[in-house]
Amino acid sequence: MGEEHSDGLFEKLPEGYREKLGRPGEYPFTRGVYPRMYLDRLWTMRQYAGFGSAEETNARFRYLLEKGQTGLSVAFDLPTQLGLDPDHPLAVGEVGRVGVSIATLDDMRRLFDQIPLERVTTSMTINAPAMMLLAMYLLVAEEQGVSWHDVGGTIQNDILKEYVARGTYIYPPAPSMRLVTDVFEFASENVPRWNTISISGYHIREAGATAAQEIAFTLANAKAYVRAALERGLELDRFAPRLSFFFAAHNDVFEEAAKFRAARRMWARIMKEEFGAQNPKSWMLRFHTQTGGSTLTAQQPLNNIVRVAYQALAAVLGGTQSLHTNAYDEALGLPTEESALIALRTQQILAYESGITRAVDAAGGSFYLEHLTEELEAQASQIIEQIETLGGAPAAIEKGFVQKEIEESAWRYQREIEEGKRVIVGLNRFVSEEETSVPVMRIDPEVGRRRAEEVQRYREERNAEATREALAKLRGAARGSENLFPYVLEAFRERATLGEVAGVLREVWGEYQPGG
Amino acid sequence: MGEEHSDGLFEKLPEGYREKLGRPGEYPFTRGVYPRMYLDRLWTMRQYAGFGSAEETNARFRYLLEKGQTGLSVAFDLPTQLGLDPDHPLAVGEVGRVGVSIATLDDMRRLFDQIPLERVTTSMTINAPAMMLLAMYLLVAEEQGVSWHDVGGTIQNDILKEYVARGTYIYPPAPSMRLVTDVFEFASENVPRWNTISISGYHIREAGATAAQEIAFTLANAKAYVRAALERGLELDRFAPRLSFFFAAHNDVFEEAAKFRAARRMWARIMKEEFGAQNPKSWMLRFHTQTGGSTLTAQQPLNNIVRVAYQALAAVLGGTQSLHTNAYDEALGLPTEESALIALRTQQILAYESGITRAVDAAGGSFYLEHLTEELEAQASQIIEQIETLGGAPAAIEKGFVQKEIEESAWRYQREIEEGKRVIVGLNRFVSEEETSVPVMRIDPEVGRRRAEEVQRYREERNAEATREALAKLRGAARGSENLFPYVLEAFRERATLGEVAGVLREVWGEYQPGG
Repeated sequence: MGEEHSDGLFEKLPEGYREKLGRPGEYPFTRGVYPRMYLDRLWTMRQYAGFGSAEETNARFRYLLEKGQTGLSVAFDLPTQLGLDPDHPLAVGEVGRVGVSIATLDDMRRLFDQIPLERVTTSMTINAPAMMLLAMYLLVAEEQGVSWHDVGGTIQNDILKEYVARGTYIYPPAPSMRLVTDVFEFASENVPRWNTISISGYHIREAGATAAQEIAFTLANAKAYVRAALERGLELDRFAPRLSFFFAAHNDVFEEAAKFRAARRMWARIMKEEFGAQNPKSWMLRFHTQTGGSTLTAQQPLNNIVRVAYQALAAVLGGTQSLHTNAYDEALGLPTEESALIALRTQQILAYESGITRAVDAAGGSFYLEHLTEELEAQASQIIEQIETLGGAPAAIEKGFVQKEIEESAWRYQREIEEGKRVIVGLNRFVSEEETSVPVMRIDPEVGRRRAEEVQRYREERNAEATREALAKLRGAARGSENLFPYVLEAFRERATLGEVAGVLREVWGEYQPGG
Repeated sequence: MGEEHSDGLFEKLPEGYREKLGRPGEYPFTRGVYPRMYLDRLWTMRQYAGFGSAEETNARFRYLLEKGQTGLSVAFDLPTQLGLDPDHPLAVGEVGRVGVSIATLDDMRRLFDQIPLERVTTSMTINAPAMMLLAMYLLVAEEQGVSWHDVGGTIQNDILKEYVARGTYIYPPAPSMRLVTDVFEFASENVPRWNTISISGYHIREAGATAAQEIAFTLANAKAYVRAALERGLELDRFAPRLSFFFAAHNDVFEEAAKFRAARRMWARIMKEEFGAQNPKSWMLRFHTQTGGSTLTAQQPLNNIVRVAYQALAAVLGGTQSLHTNAYDEALGLPTEESALIALRTQQILAYESGITRAVDAAGGSFYLEHLTEELEAQASQIIEQIETLGGAPAAIEKGFVQKEIEESAWRYQREIEEGKRVIVGLNRFVSEEETSVPVMRIDPEVGRRRAEEVQRYREERNAEATREALAKLRGAARGSENLFPYVLEAFRERATLGEVAGVLREVWGEYQPGG
């Protein structure tokens, strides 16, 4: 079913319109990056998960894989995201809270215990210390006897949006961009199946941006990474095919589907026409989607199952390559096993029962959808032009432009809710007095203490001299301009901790101070 | 938003294609019966509900209205549907079980206690005794001081599908068809806002028919009603605008949306070109939709929230005028207050958060959707032709053709599930050992005894002679060819019970024996 049939009607369109859309798998990829999309292969069902210790998260991973999940996605706790060990004073109360605590190669090994890394792909939401976590992951693969050439996955590694929306930066922009491009370079040679960055609109959207802003700020950041890599001397058609993207799926089904299609068409043009990429793979915007955490309500939590179902559909109508569906209780706490299962089942029902995978770009051609796609493209293009006028994304961020635009949108959105112009069922309309209570997951309060002891024991049991030497070499390299990836690998081989590796770079580069 | 914009792309289509689709609100109504659809007015949120006594169901009605439901839909128990009083021997164990037990005008009055009948519209799923329940409803309206001209709603009154799919027939086909057309005639003069029939594909689909069969058998039945009314001498453009339809929404989102659009286009052509209707309202297929009860699973019941969300979306993409969303626990028992609320919330999220109501026919123009619409139209047209060759729906039913076709489809569907070709999440794939338990509603086991006592008391307290006289007049009229509606009204005014009124007609006409 599907594409064969649709072609008949597609061919009836006027030529200019047909060219603007393109067929699925053809430039400018409005209708999807592959000719047969889900007819050949479903999107990867990749649930973002992580809490407490490596062992607890490993158990959740194996639970989800056993239930039919097809890819892994690691949520790290804040100390890990900030490159701090669990015994650091600033880590108190945060260890294992919003994600798993990983500080050592031992932790990483336990996180993937009994999970063969040549058979799953793994996404890691990690930015400032992205190189470090990828290095540990590769060392675990090596221990499992898996060639780096057979390892697939994604690291977020998108530092620019941290400055405007997410907040887990460590270093100032210039050395941060160097870490990003070092990863591009190292992985394109050594880990060819790895997506070296996941340029993220998700957090921008969750911070209050509109759909058009989500496209614009994400693609503007993407252009900045491309420029940085070119300046570093990397070859465009070598690194560009491994760039990947990450978007949110909010409630407005057709607007969201249009957003993904507009972003895909714009990126294809940017890469081909602006940067002159020759490799069709460099033109293809491939993306992961997560349903919109900020759209979920603590009130009447089972209603969130409905929201997530519509958002997931929007992502699939938009041609996503991989998908996280939120659990209905995420406005209340970490997902329980039960709520995580329903989130996964939502994807499975969408994939196997909704019929949506029987067609390529099922909604493509819809007058409304194509209109929205054009409209979002026009709006987002205008914002990107403004950013270019300011000197590109890093300069626009430095001047506070992006932050201010997001804040204004967030404010407008909130005001619409307060004035009742935007209805949120159960929040500002159809409010119920009786509230459904659902079980909430609690993190073991002892996890911080246990993790601190573990990392201290790890430090005691190593060859201190070898560790010190590896860290000293990393320090030297950080002062120069060599690719840092091999030094980071070496430090973890010599049992340095994440806090130590990140700390060496802190010493050399300092920390970013917002507004400073 | 919406239609204004879509028009630009619509105008780019080749002329023949544009004409086949039509604009929303224009013949052949592929894109909807109204030009602005939900931009002007949302569909009616009409949850099918009823259990136990009139008081219990009245409480549920008022609960749903308070939670934002916008129309009522009455589920009657089996004895009521079969025209039997609750003290009839065959009623034992069935009173109040699958719906509310209504036998007297007193019951009907309590069912709508504190519900002003000029302000809500009510749908009643009642067939063989449809005239009787409508008569009681009108008498209650009269008592409330509401003019019959201000009363709106629908009775199912679709006897043909009872013989092939649903089974709650009483009388043989000929007098049954007379009851149907008597309602057409009486209501078109006296209750002009009432939909005099709801020609139902729902039960045909639930019995195992395909989407194309659902369209075909429903429209074939509809043609039979039109012919019967014409033979009775009724004026086409007088009764046709009050015909309404009722379809299922199953899982395949685009196929289902296409089904509604194909049915609408076909009916417009049938009425205009075959029957020569002049009034555009006679061409418009208006319909209620219910999500597919048979698609829900007892396993992992919360998964049904996801299914219902997609099915509801399909109905709205298909342009439904009113919608029932099933509760997630309907495979286990009657909906609890909580599950009924989530079902309603699903509609509200769809209406107020999904953005789908910002456009008219949001998916219209999609290559895939328009292809499916054409395909379903072709398939359904062919089946209707077969039925016409057999002499129309009543003859095709008599010959067992329709039943056999449905059985074969049901058998194929079951085999696909058994062979794993059709995946049902939680049933034949992604099965969980641990089962979620959800609260199940239980009907008071005393309700049958109480209802029997009530109806006996009702009979004792009336003027027996007046009742007997009214029933005698009804009997006389049934033997002739007069419109029976006034006689039925009179019998209920004189405190006859439903069982007595239906029983008089049983005496005169006998009962239908399947296969006899």
